[in-house]
Amino acid sequence: MDEKWNHFDEAGNAVMVDVSEKAVTVRTASAAGAIRVNAEVMDAVVHGNVKKGDVLGVARVAGIMAAKQAWSLIPMCHPLCIRKCAVDFETDEEKLEIRAISTVKVEEKTGVEMEALTAVTVALLTIYDMCKAIDRGMEITDVRLLAKTGGRSGDITYG
Amino acid sequence: MDEKWNHFDEAGNAVMVDVSEKAVTVRTASAAGAIRVNAEVMDAVVHGNVKKGDVLGVARVAGIMAAKQAWSLIPMCHPLCIRKCAVDFETDEEKLEIRAISTVKVEEKTGVEMEALTAVTVALLTIYDMCKAIDRGMEITDVRLLAKTGGRSGDITYG
Amino acid sequence: MDEKWNHFDEAGNAVMVDVSEKAVTVRTASAAGAIRVNAEVMDAVVHGNVKKGDVLGVARVAGIMAAKQAWSLIPMCHPLCIRKCAVDFETDEEKLEIRAISTVKVEEKTGVEMEALTAVTVALLTIYDMCKAIDRGMEITDVRLLAKTGGRSGDITYG
Amino acid sequence: MDEKWNHFDEAGNAVMVDVSEKAVTVRTASAAGAIRVNAEVMDAVVHGNVKKGDVLGVARVAGIMAAKQAWSLIPMCHPLCIRKCAVDFETDEEKLEIRAISTVKVEEKTGVEMEALTAVTVALLTIYDMCKAIDRGMEITDVRLLAKTGGRSGDITYG
Amino acid sequence: MDEKWNHFDEAGNAVMVDVSEKAVTVRTASAAGAIRVNAEVMDAVVHGNVKKGDVLGVARVAGIMAAKQAWSLIPMCHPLCIRKCAVDFETDEEKLEIRAISTVKVEEKTGVEMEALTAVTVALLTIYDMCKAIDRGMEITDVRLLAKTGGRSGDITYG
Amino acid sequence: MDEKWNHFDEAGNAVMVDVSEKAVTVRTASAAGAIRVNAEVMDAVVHGNVKKGDVLGVARVAGIMAAKQAWSLIPMCHPLCIRKCAVDFETDEEKLEIRAISTVKVEEKTGVEMEALTAVTVALLTIYDMCKAIDRGMEITDVRLLAKTGGRSGDITYG
Repeated sequence: MDEKWNHFDEAGNAVMVDVSEKAVTVRTASAAGAIRVNAEVMDAVVHGNVKKGDVLGVARVAGIMAAKQAWSLIPMCHPLCIRKCAVDFETDEEKLEIRAISTVKVEEKTGVEMEALTAVTVALLTIYDMCKAIDRGMEITDVRLLAKTGGRSGDITYG
Repeated sequence: MDEKWNHFDEAGNAVMVDVSEKAVTVRTASAAGAIRVNAEVMDAVVHGNVKKGDVLGVARVAGIMAAKQAWSLIPMCHPLCIRKCAVDFETDEEKLEIRAISTVKVEEKTGVEMEALTAVTVALLTIYDMCKAIDRGMEITDVRLLAKTGGRSGDITYG
Repeated sequence: MDEKWNHFDEAGNAVMVDVSEKAVTVRTASAAGAIRVNAEVMDAVVHGNVKKGDVLGVARVAGIMAAKQAWSLIPMCHPLCIRKCAVDFETDEEKLEIRAISTVKVEEKTGVEMEALTAVTVALLTIYDMCKAIDRGMEITDVRLLAKTGGRSGDITYG
Repeated sequence: MDEKWNHFDEAGNAVMVDVSEKAVTVRTASAAGAIRVNAEVMDAVVHGNVKKGDVLGVARVAGIMAAKQAWSLIPMCHPLCIRKCAVDFETDEEKLEIRAISTVKVEEKTGVEMEALTAVTVALLTIYDMCKAIDRGMEITDVRLLAKTGGRSGDITYG
Repeated sequence: MDEKWNHFDEAGNAVMVDVSEKAVTVRTASAAGAIRVNAEVMDAVVHGNVKKGDVLGVARVAGIMAAKQAWSLIPMCHPLCIRKCAVDFETDEEKLEIRAISTVKVEEKTGVEMEALTAVTVALLTIYDMCKAIDRGMEITDVRLLAKTGGRSGDITYG
Repeated sequence: MDEKWNHFDEAGNAVMVDVSEKAVTVRTASAAGAIRVNAEVMDAVVHGNVKKGDVLGVARVAGIMAAKQAWSLIPMCHPLCIRKCAVDFETDEEKLEIRAISTVKVEEKTGVEMEALTAVTVALLTIYDMCKAIDRGMEITDVRLLAKTGGRSGDITYG
């Protein structure tokens, strides 16, 4: 079997792959994603004040907490004790998009791409939840890895 | 304050809104999303056999289990005992997209949009995890609600 | 497809089955299981005193807490708000067996067999964990349903 | 107090024992267990095809995910970041038994017996859950450690 | 045995008590607690601005999410699907105390005191965590029930 | 920004701080807290026998299990694999107080204060839960750090 399909054994059964031979290095991953919202949601989020509440503040907490749970949500994902997690947001009022960007860091034998992606998706799902009474047509999109460092494949920045 | 911003109290503080006045009805929600993959991933997933293992089978289990955890991941989301959850997949070999579709059902005072969306996103994240050694440029996209039934807003199908 | 194989849809994909058409009734389930231990473990557990600590007390708490988590451990198991859970133990000093018996109660559309079985197995695993430094040959055995009441199939006692 | 009863302090109170003085080594554990089923279940599982669905595939995922949760289920069990987990199945059509075998690996100060045993029991409970509409007399049995390596007690294979 | 000690059976063993005979009513509980901080912490929290970040906002989210987990933390606590949860804060700059107040609502056979108390304690622990680099002498105090409504004991306000 | 407010980035957004530059050392933390109860509760707990059941035994298990979950409850708290956890109790029959004391140990880049404090608070909440039918005026108080060792700030004993 192709070595790259390492989430399966020779019989094709799913397996949490053995990473014990890999080196412990500092590894980081950064991911991003966006949610498309209507003008009313964008206005409230961007000009958020006491009256409208802090949608992005709640979404940030949710994203950070979810990064810590990636291993319990994704079946073949290794448990990891992450060392750092940040989630930030950018708002594009013209394109009516709120963008979430996460950064996760660990010193481990395996990377933190899934932690970074989980942080982004749960942060965006939280925005969806808190705004769904206003906008029923929101869409989560463009969720992808931005960059990773550490590990055998070295440092990579994605287009 | 605008009643629609009901995830915040009058002072703008986040709150899990009171749904006790709402009616218990059968409510369903269906959501979809896609992951863009390269040809090698698509080939393995579509012509999946014992050798390559059952990527979608694992992703389906992950999505269903995640639907049950939506309330623990999304801060202001109400805990619910869902009655049904299914996750299916469609593959578009030309567009190189795998699409996940979820359906969730409940008899409750509040809807299951977030459960359906969480099922889809975690199913797609699981595909990402199991194929990331092959394709480093995958992207999760088009995550949105397809339809909902039950509740005060009645039955809605999204475009 | 055979209706009894209802954990799969027509395409053979795993699904959390729709129980919304079933009746809400009081449902109970009782399960049992045993762990075979050596004489040293049996002596300590049976004549347990302050010096040896309360192995069964810890195992009881673990079993009750696990019953509440059955739905999060078993993929197609429905989330339920159980109304009662008890775990008891019997020790057979001749056969060198400690037997765990659980009872779970709910008012729901689906039964609590899995909750009762999960309580028993986690209680026995906890005994294993706390005694494994003494006895390396312990074995968990005879885990099965004792009885269930409520639901369409009525009251059943197993042999 | 007997040093082997190290899950209790001198007063007999349960304690999560201090493992900080132990050596970090590669440690593995392998466990097995079986579920006795009737002929109808065995036939469906062995000749499993699209129509009947992949019972063992779902059970494998459940077992691997449960190995990661052993520390949260078993009160005095230390949290661990496991490096590998596999769950396999053997079917004995004559004895009408499905056997689950797990292997878990870690580099830590304490072993992974409980992770291996938890993987096996939750995999078997999942088979139970998915087949319980067909067979009401299933029984989980013979759950035990097969082998362990690493740690002070060295490599051990159980009879 | 005294009926009031209903968390134990006749043999003195801990049990999750049977609440199935109780009436489903709307039940609320409100709890409060405080954390004593030094002047530097109080100043930052009260005059919190972008530079200092929103300690109370994060603590509020943590408290609400913890209310949903009370049943998984407290062994004999019944799982419940809460309908509403709010956590608010008051700051007393003279006494150097930050006070958390929670309100939880449910329609169930058992009350939500533990959910309200868990929300308060985890909110206060979160403040502790985020300020512990500044003040090493913080103290959580005065955690108690303020009021409850619904249930057999009727509406009660505590002094 | 003040370096001590390290749970926030320069823009004031909450962040799980980067601890990867810190040294791995053995770190311990000890915390304490008390619950004020009425005479009936104190009598039952102190003279606890089979009839009344082992309130403190259940609370100890709950506290130890909660220490392992501190990182999942407290948003910016780092996940850690704790090496040891103990929870003890002292009863002061005159002051009608039950005091919980926890000790947690780890070899990590960050301390275990939050784990020790979480163990104490959940142990006290469990006592509250099991005795709330007897005493409606209980109060949790004096929850604070007793001592910590390891880490840059060295060994500290609190007054």
